[in-house]
Parts: sequence; C-alpha cells; structure tokens
Amino acid sequence: MNVQTASPGHADAESPEALVERLARDGRAAQRVLARLTDEQKAAALRAAAAALRDSEAPILEANALDLAAGEAKGLTSAMLDRLRLDPARLAGIADAVEQVASLPDPVGQVIDTGERPNGLRLSRVRIPIGLIGIIYESRPNVTADAAALCLRSGNAALLRGGSEALNSNRAIRSAFASGLESVGLPAAAIQLVPTQDRAVVGAMLTAAGLIDMIVPRGGKSLVARVQADARVPVLAHLDGICHTYVHSAADPEMAKTVVLNAKMRRTGICGAMETLLLDTQFPASRDVVTSLIEAGCELRGDARARALDSRILPASDEDWDTEYLDAVLSVAIVDGFEAAVEHIAEHSSHHTDAIITADDAAAERFLAEVDSAIVMVNASSQFADGGEFGLGAEIGIATGRLHARGPVALEGLTTYKWLVRGTGQARP
Amino acid sequence: MNVQTASPGHADAESPEALVERLARDGRAAQRVLARLTDEQKAAALRAAAAALRDSEAPILEANALDLAAGEAKGLTSAMLDRLRLDPARLAGIADAVEQVASLPDPVGQVIDTGERPNGLRLSRVRIPIGLIGIIYESRPNVTADAAALCLRSGNAALLRGGSEALNSNRAIRSAFASGLESVGLPAAAIQLVPTQDRAVVGAMLTAAGLIDMIVPRGGKSLVARVQADARVPVLAHLDGICHTYVHSAADPEMAKTVVLNAKMRRTGICGAMETLLLDTQFPASRDVVTSLIEAGCELRGDARARALDSRILPASDEDWDTEYLDAVLSVAIVDGFEAAVEHIAEHSSHHTDAIITADDAAAERFLAEVDSAIVMVNASSQFADGGEFGLGAEIGIATGRLHARGPVALEGLTTYKWLVRGTGQARP
Repeated sequence: MNVQTASPGHADAESPEALVERLARDGRAAQRVLARLTDEQKAAALRAAAAALRDSEAPILEANALDLAAGEAKGLTSAMLDRLRLDPARLAGIADAVEQVASLPDPVGQVIDTGERPNGLRLSRVRIPIGLIGIIYESRPNVTADAAALCLRSGNAALLRGGSEALNSNRAIRSAFASGLESVGLPAAAIQLVPTQDRAVVGAMLTAAGLIDMIVPRGGKSLVARVQADARVPVLAHLDGICHTYVHSAADPEMAKTVVLNAKMRRTGICGAMETLLLDTQFPASRDVVTSLIEAGCELRGDARARALDSRILPASDEDWDTEYLDAVLSVAIVDGFEAAVEHIAEHSSHHTDAIITADDAAAERFLAEVDSAIVMVNASSQFADGGEFGLGAEIGIATGRLHARGPVALEGLTTYKWLVRGTGQARP
Repeated sequence: MNVQTASPGHADAESPEALVERLARDGRAAQRVLARLTDEQKAAALRAAAAALRDSEAPILEANALDLAAGEAKGLTSAMLDRLRLDPARLAGIADAVEQVASLPDPVGQVIDTGERPNGLRLSRVRIPIGLIGIIYESRPNVTADAAALCLRSGNAALLRGGSEALNSNRAIRSAFASGLESVGLPAAAIQLVPTQDRAVVGAMLTAAGLIDMIVPRGGKSLVARVQADARVPVLAHLDGICHTYVHSAADPEMAKTVVLNAKMRRTGICGAMETLLLDTQFPASRDVVTSLIEAGCELRGDARARALDSRILPASDEDWDTEYLDAVLSVAIVDGFEAAVEHIAEHSSHHTDAIITADDAAAERFLAEVDSAIVMVNASSQFADGGEFGLGAEIGIATGRLHARGPVALEGLTTYKWLVRGTGQARP
C-alpha cells in the first residue's frame, strides 16, 4: 500500500518530537535497505517511480486542483499560484526529471583512494549514503519528486516537509512515488512526507540530531534563515546569492557588455544573478555597459563615480552593497584596480558566485586564487551557477557553507565515506 | 613581537563575545595571508616554528614548572600532572612533530576534478583552507603545537583555548611558535591563544558562526559532549569509541586470540580500544579467547552464554553494551551468526571502529559493506584506528559525524574546495 504511514488522527495524538522520531526511525530502517542496493536496483526503482507518477496523472492533478482552489480562496498571488500549479506537461516534466536522475552515475561504492601500509594493512575510503535527509521546502510541488529522486539515487532516505498550500499535491506525488518503489519491492518509508502542517514539526526536525543526518531547506530567504538559526542538525544551504561581476581594465568591451547583461537580466530572480557590478576605473567602455543595462530595463544604483557615467543611475546607500535584489536592480561601483575589486568582494560577497571579465590571463588566475567563494568565474555569466550547467545532472541545492560540500550540490554531496581496513591478523605494536 | 595581542587588562574589559569576535577577526585577517602561501612557504614557516620551540626550551620549561606547582597545590592527580609535565625530551618531541607536519604533502591547491562543458566552460574543483579553526582542549600542552602545525600546514588560522591548568605552558609554546612564524614574515595572529580562562569564552567560541568556521574539541567525553550540545559552529569530533570486534565462525583461533587481546589490552584508554567482544556461537575457540583476556588482567562482563565459558565472567547489565570503559574491562556477548553480530553493532556501536575476525572472504566483504561505521576492519586490531597508523602523518582528531570527514582527520579534513569556472565570454541561453 502506498498510503502515508501515519493517519492524521495518529499524528494529532503525538507530540511533534515523537512524530519526527517515529518517522525518522521508519526512514532510517528503510535507508538500511537502500544502502545495500546496487546501482541498477536504484535506477530501476527510480524508473518505476517515474512510471507511477505518469500513471497517477489523474489523482495528482485532482489533488493539485484542491490546493489551487484553497490557494485562490486564501488570496495567494498569481505568482504563488503559478508555482503551485501542475498540468499534464508539468507533471510529465517531473517524471522526466526522475528518469534523468535514474540515468546519473551512482556515487555509492566509489573508491576515493586506497593505500597499503608497511605492516600490510590495506586501506580504502569508499563512498556511502549519508542516511536520512530532511528536506524543508515551500510551495513548488515538483521538489517532492526531485528531492526524493536525488536522495534515493544516492541511497538516502528522505523525510519531506513541504508547504501547507501544496499539501494535497505533495501527498499525491509522494504516494505515487512510493507506490513505484513498492512495485520493485522497496519500502515506502524510504520517501516519507510529514503528515501534518503543524509548524512545530519543523522545529522538531531541525533539532533531531542523531535521527536526521542533514537538512536541506529549499525556498526563500526567511525559510533558510530560520533553518540555519534553529538547526542542530547539519544544514546544506545558501542564504544569499550576492554575486559580483568585476569588469577588469583588460576586459574585452563587447564580452563585458554581453556577459554583464546576461548575468543580471537573463533571469533576475535566481540566486546566481549578479547583484553588484564592479567597473575598473581603467576599463574604457564602462558607459556602454551601464547604458545597455539601463536600456534593458534595469534600475542602477551607483556610487558617486558610477553616477557620473549616466544621469539615470540612482544613488546607492550603504545597504545596497549587501542586498540581494532578485529583481531588475543592480548596484554599481567604480573600483581602483584589481585589489580594490577583490577587497570589495571579500567584504560584501555572500561567497556564492563571483566573476571577473578580463583578457589578461594573469589577472584571471589571480582572481580565481584570491576570491574565496564557492564558485569563482572568469569570462562567464554568473547565471551558469547551477548543477545542471555544471554537468551534475541535477542539484539538491547550492551551498555556501565551508564544510562538506560547496557550490552546486548533487549526488556526491549526498554521500559520505567510510574507511575500510583489510588485514591479515595485525596487532598494533 | 610574539606577545599575545590582548593584554589581560584589555580582555577583562571586554565581553566574552567581543573578545572572541576581536580574536576571530584578527585570525581571519591572518588566514587570508596564509591562504596565499605556497607549499614551500608553509613548510618553511613550520620549520621556523619548530626551531623557535627548541630555542625556547628554558622559558617553556619555566612556564611549565609554574603550571605543575599550581597543579600540585590544587591537588591534581599524578596522572593529570603527568599529562601536564614537559621535560627537554618531551619538548624536543613536540618540535619534532611540528617538523614532521612540515614534511607532509600540502593539500591546498590540489585539483579534485576537472571537466569541460559542451559550451566550452572549463570547470575544476580545487582544495582551499577552511578558514579559522577553533581548538578547545584540556591539559596536554603538546596540543598547542600539534594543532597549530596542522592548521598552518593546511593554510588555516587557529584559535586555541586550552585548559586552565596548562595556561602558562600553552602561552609559552604559542609564543615560541608565533615568533617562529614572525621570523619568516608571517602574522603571529595566524595562531592565537585565548588570553583568559573565563569559561564563558568557550560558549562564545561555540556560537561564533561566521567568525569561526569549525571547532575541534580535544579531550574527555564531558568536554566533547558540551561542545556538541552547545555549538552553532560545525564540530569535528567523536563522543564515544564503543568499538566492537566480532569473532566469526570461520576465524582462525590463534589470530582471534592475538587480535582480540591487542584490541583490548594494548592501551585501554584510547578511543580505538575494543569495548565489546562478540563471539559467534559457531566459533570453536571462544573459551581460549576469553581465558587469555582474563589472564591478561581484563575484567569481563558477559551475557548468560558468555558466562558459561568461564565462571570468572561477571554478569553484564543492559548499560554495559553502551559503555566505553576506557579501562581493562570488556563486555562479551555470544551471537547467533553474522546477522546477529551486525545487528548488535548497528544498535550499540558509536560508529567509530568495528572489526571482524574471519578467514571467510565473503563474510569479510559483507561485514565491510554492511557495518556503517567511520572505520570498518577485517582481521586487524581496532587499536590501529589512528591517523599515524593510517599513513596520514598526524591527526587533528577522529570524527564519527557523517558529514565532511569521518575517521582519522588530518590535513585533507582541514580543507574545503571551491569551483573554478574558466570561460571565453559565455552567456547563459
């Protein structure tokens, strides 16, 4: 059966902590089964889940219609309703994405390194799943299937907690996904959805150290900030994407115009969008770059020297240098050379993605070495900061923390390793 | 000058949070210098630090004498005084260890992987330092130099907080170490020692997210437990080393006796010491193994079937299976075959190190696959769980968490990575 393990009545009777503990124990037991699966068994399970999603089009769209009706009654914005909405094409896209994850190489079992000691002990480090991953997300129901697929591909169980406005959609997607797993003999508890919208359950997940191995928040800044502030479990996330592009004195003017325009305006709402443009005082075509942005509909906020380039540039406040607009707004500063640019980035970057445009290889390599962000780019649009664009096939998120995994995180970031030691009876002297 | 940046008077006037913030900002500024050093520059700095430690024998031993006198007056046990005591030979050993770290390969700059995308973007992941590492430790003053050396070798700054009973010794060692760094033009703030013993400073370090990148506790279980409970900064540690050895039905009896005796009795107080012995019902020589342990002076606590092997075995309580004795005490259970052994380990292990003794290769490989501990061994003593024995040259600690690094952690575990993207003007379609 593919129903959720907890009936709502049962959940009501439990404390949030007890509910999370029960779900986590079921998830961990299921994960021990996943940990022993071969590459091909996991791929087959994902193909079965994708097929089940396609077969469940009618119930999933019915559940989604309930969420949309409730959302309209609650007065959700049209943008929020659009994020929530599923249709046959979008659902097919969700199933396609699950199949794509099935075709990615399995990181589990990869040998990281090996060695032999003088005493004959043979050592190796081998990738293994992390365990139980908690995913806390907002209104997009596709995250239910995407996150489930990435966790399962890497041998992890998932405990999903989606937004209340998508609860029916999420339940239907999870139910279809789990029935696909069951059709190939796997436990449905490998992918669980928290059966209640009680907000205290999120708090219980965040503090479930030893039960949940890692939390991935997927959503807006307030969600990520809350998760980072309250979690006792390790969190993989980025809070801000305050991405810089520095146009060096030796930048090709045409390239600078093209890349800068793309970095800001291709999609303004993604975390890899440029939020601050640094123009070198020695770069000769700054006015052209600025004009092309304004003509593309971007609001510019500049320091005094930037404003001298074009009267349409508004004055920037101190906060502008630390603001992620996620909109057609850009802060612009004129910098006195390479060091000043790197200094500005060190002070204001959220260490997500920062880029230099230059034809000078030495400046490029210095920038790559000295800028300490998860992603550092030369002569490319910061909008490439994405797991798919990096060839990872998918991503569970982009991380700006310094431990475990940085930048786009896909399957490898969902694994850890263990040391295997093969001896022949060695005792330590 | 190699004096600590904060005078005690200054520190007294500051809140613990302000003190930690000031030290952390100084440390982070120094780390940016370390991040740009070459392999050879870092090795030279460590050799200079080792030479300074040798040159400072007199002031270090004088400072240590003050700590020893205060410790005796306070009534420290002789074991504690021994941990605290330095002499010319021990100090030479500390300097030698710093030189050994200098000779280890530098992980910074290593290319983890590279790739090229169809659009011509060239990607690589390159190891970089983590940043500022906080080390919180107890009475052994050698940790001051050991931890400083490992952090510096991997381009990290260190903020050290040692035990109050070793404060004078730690100050003298840190002062010598820092003067070595300064002699080759590096900032002394790369290696700082918290200048006060105010316990609230530890709390301020544990919550200094964004200022301290990782905390490594070095000491007893109560210290580690406190750090793990209170930290908002990622912690690299292990709380318990409840290590198991499972003697499989197909184990060679002589090998079983040798390895088991070593795993328990070589040194009983280290985290890799065996704490529970699992004897297969089908293993024919269990009585010999048990007798050899008892004759070596080990107290055995067993389940009913184990006690039938020898009348000197005491009854084990439920807690014994979850106890790290760190002493000549061992819990012993008879298990009904491979699955029962793996089950017992899954339930009771602290996931530090677990071992099987068997001549059956299939059983060995199954054990390596199914036991989910940081280190899993076949036919070897669990006392080999050590960075030096693993060929890592040294270790900052052994980690049983699931993220970032597991098992013995040396220089690689003190690094993270960034993505470098080299383009030729690509805009994202």
